Amino acid sequence: MIEPLDRAITELKKLPGIGQKTAERLIFHLLTRDPEDVRRLSDALIDLVEEVDRCKICGNFSTGDKCEICADSRRNQEKICVVSRPWDVTKLESTQKYDGLYHVLGGLINPIEDVSPEDLAIDDLLERAKKEEVREVILALEPKTEGESTSMFLVKKLRPLDVEITQIAQGIPVGRELEFMDKATLGKAFEGRRDLN
Amino acid sequence: MIEPLDRAITELKKLPGIGQKTAERLIFHLLTRDPEDVRRLSDALIDLVEEVDRCKICGNFSTGDKCEICADSRRNQEKICVVSRPWDVTKLESTQKYDGLYHVLGGLINPIEDVSPEDLAIDDLLERAKKEEVREVILALEPKTEGESTSMFLVKKLRPLDVEITQIAQGIPVGRELEFMDKATLGKAFEGRRDLN
Repeated sequence: MIEPLDRAITELKKLPGIGQKTAERLIFHLLTRDPEDVRRLSDALIDLVEEVDRCKICGNFSTGDKCEICADSRRNQEKICVVSRPWDVTKLESTQKYDGLYHVLGGLINPIEDVSPEDLAIDDLLERAKKEEVREVILALEPKTEGESTSMFLVKKLRPLDVEITQIAQGIPVGRELEFMDKATLGKAFEGRRDLN
Repeated sequence: MIEPLDRAITELKKLPGIGQKTAERLIFHLLTRDPEDVRRLSDALIDLVEEVDRCKICGNFSTGDKCEICADSRRNQEKICVVSRPWDVTKLESTQKYDGLYHVLGGLINPIEDVSPEDLAIDDLLERAKKEEVREVILALEPKTEGESTSMFLVKKLRPLDVEITQIAQGIPVGRELEFMDKATLGKAFEGRRDLN
């Protein structure tokens, strides 16, 4: 195979979920497209890594020192929602149910993969939580072992501070049938039952 | 979502088989990679469309006017294998069972999609087949309706010339069980049976 084809396939195969077949299919597709389209894709990827930075305050994706959420004074400054990764912010924002701020930890405590509390933006969170205006820290970490233990660690650290600590609800996803839910989720759904009176 | 993220997702979604979810996953992966890696991918895509051309003789992928196969005088100049698309050449070359030349038609005759013989490199093929050194034209078009009718059309055009016309074998793929083969393939396998004496 000629060099430019081979190199494009090699580079595409480094992406997650893209094997030889998919890379070939993509390449052959690109070769039938207008070169301008391919240039737009290529530029978008370069701009992505050159322009997308992390917010110095919360760790969210940002094009400057401060992300759009931290820079928006209309956001409720009393609440900080703690997430693991920046894309969790994107996901939670899509609900349009939350008007507060965020804090991205950058991962979860995981002794097996050698991620300790010092590797995460936990000290920054505690500093932010100490501020007078902050009243509630909402934990929105993934409901799996590492998320639970990171949440527990954060609760221990946050408890001495004068803030309310809450966690987003775990339970039955909307539209799912009880029959197909796992026991752990059903247990959480029971524990988190709401009073409807 | 911030502009560079949004734009990268929009561009990735134009690729076949990549939807919103996959595009997001790729983007988030790229953002955790070394920017140099992303630049290499971006450069490879640009080089792909800028450097990969079509061979002026056979229509195969090429980095100059002549592809590696047409430029190689050790290839058997007596045989021309006719394929639909340039990547069929790559595929057939991978077998290492063929030492002749190729001819890429650029598609198949398809009245429904308005592809007529004039849209394909058929006249070029006939010109090449007329050359004294050419003794065999091997048809290797996809064994589906359009492939079959294009092959039939080519046979009609090639018959007056002094060349042998052959077609690659259709039959049971290696390693497949008879039980799961379709009737058409089994029929072709019978028709194409070989004498083992």
